[in-house]
Amino acid sequence: MSLQRLFHQKLSPFSRKVRLALAEKRVEVALVEEKFWERRIDFLRLNPAGQVPVLEIDGLVLCDSTAICEYLDETRPDPALLPQGASARAEARRLAAYFDDKFHGEVTVNLLHERVTKRLMKSGYPDSGNIKMGLSAIRYHLDYIDWLADHRRWLAGDTMTIADLSAAAQISCLDYVGDVDWKRVPNAKDWYARIKSRPSFRSLLADSLPGFQVPQHYSDLDF
Amino acid sequence: MSLQRLFHQKLSPFSRKVRLALAEKRVEVALVEEKFWERRIDFLRLNPAGQVPVLEIDGLVLCDSTAICEYLDETRPDPALLPQGASARAEARRLAAYFDDKFHGEVTVNLLHERVTKRLMKSGYPDSGNIKMGLSAIRYHLDYIDWLADHRRWLAGDTMTIADLSAAAQISCLDYVGDVDWKRVPNAKDWYARIKSRPSFRSLLADSLPGFQVPQHYSDLDF
Repeated sequence: MSLQRLFHQKLSPFSRKVRLALAEKRVEVALVEEKFWERRIDFLRLNPAGQVPVLEIDGLVLCDSTAICEYLDETRPDPALLPQGASARAEARRLAAYFDDKFHGEVTVNLLHERVTKRLMKSGYPDSGNIKMGLSAIRYHLDYIDWLADHRRWLAGDTMTIADLSAAAQISCLDYVGDVDWKRVPNAKDWYARIKSRPSFRSLLADSLPGFQVPQHYSDLDF
Repeated sequence: MSLQRLFHQKLSPFSRKVRLALAEKRVEVALVEEKFWERRIDFLRLNPAGQVPVLEIDGLVLCDSTAICEYLDETRPDPALLPQGASARAEARRLAAYFDDKFHGEVTVNLLHERVTKRLMKSGYPDSGNIKMGLSAIRYHLDYIDWLADHRRWLAGDTMTIADLSAAAQISCLDYVGDVDWKRVPNAKDWYARIKSRPSFRSLLADSLPGFQVPQHYSDLDF
């Protein structure tokens, strides 16, 4: 069997999205931590974009979390991460992109990057203005998740999709640093408790980063 | 027939990507200019992310340029915007994401947003530091396109794909403001001349923005 490994970072939401997709589909891969900010030349050969995750599978090198998830869904259809029907698929993809782009840009970058990644990369101190923006943005994004979870069983509809994985991947990183105020959003909390209890989530909940204290509720399934 | 219209901005690369996809598939839609930065409440109801493009088609409201292109490819397969085979599709999706995310974040935001969008939005003056970063980044991104175009007929392989549309959409906006130094990158120029000559590109080349001078070579097919 050819090499199956994922170059990742523990608190990279895009790495986590792919780890969830792999685990849902019961594909086992070796995890390789890649300090992508060091721009290792052999890593840049694998991914000119210089980002994690990069998946080696089926003798291929795959980059970009969305492209990887679409590939996994095409080659390992069970369980499906995209629903049946073009319009339902468009809704799942819209929401996945919403969390990958908008939530990431307005919340994750402002909170996680300032608080964790900068320290890992030794690239300076947290910017309090950015943190303030992130704390303000996460409120309305959690309200949106709360609204979706109140109207649908899963975020994009009746079944769990790539939208749930994208959202849970971002949220789980922020929960690790204690930035999610679960009290305000009971429907979002119920949705997160459901996805967090899946076997695919276990490996994420076992992650720990030296020098960063994990909040007690992070890995607690009855938080 | 139900309403078919695209909410867009002329120099939004993501709007342009969808306009190219629609035109390649010969789907005619009405174009509606949306000043998304005014956060019109009826527009936010269509797209909570508050971004263009938004496509109304088949009685649906579709958001996010990638989700829209995937939908169009699933419902109107001819001509295909994704190649055959999971690994070729992964490569097309990887490159499309590369241009949508990395190229956009490092080049388009720094150049187009500073020079054009800020003026349209009346949100301040160009930041010369950002422009400098954009001018430096566009060089290596054009080198990458040049390398791809030297090794493959289209950016992701033998056929034109979503990767070419994503790249051409970004590049065409920067060409409009005169930021592309074509002399340095003959293979990239050859690729761009090929895609620019397609009938699907005509509507983009006819765009003009009041108050912004179009460089003479912009709409010239023999630039």
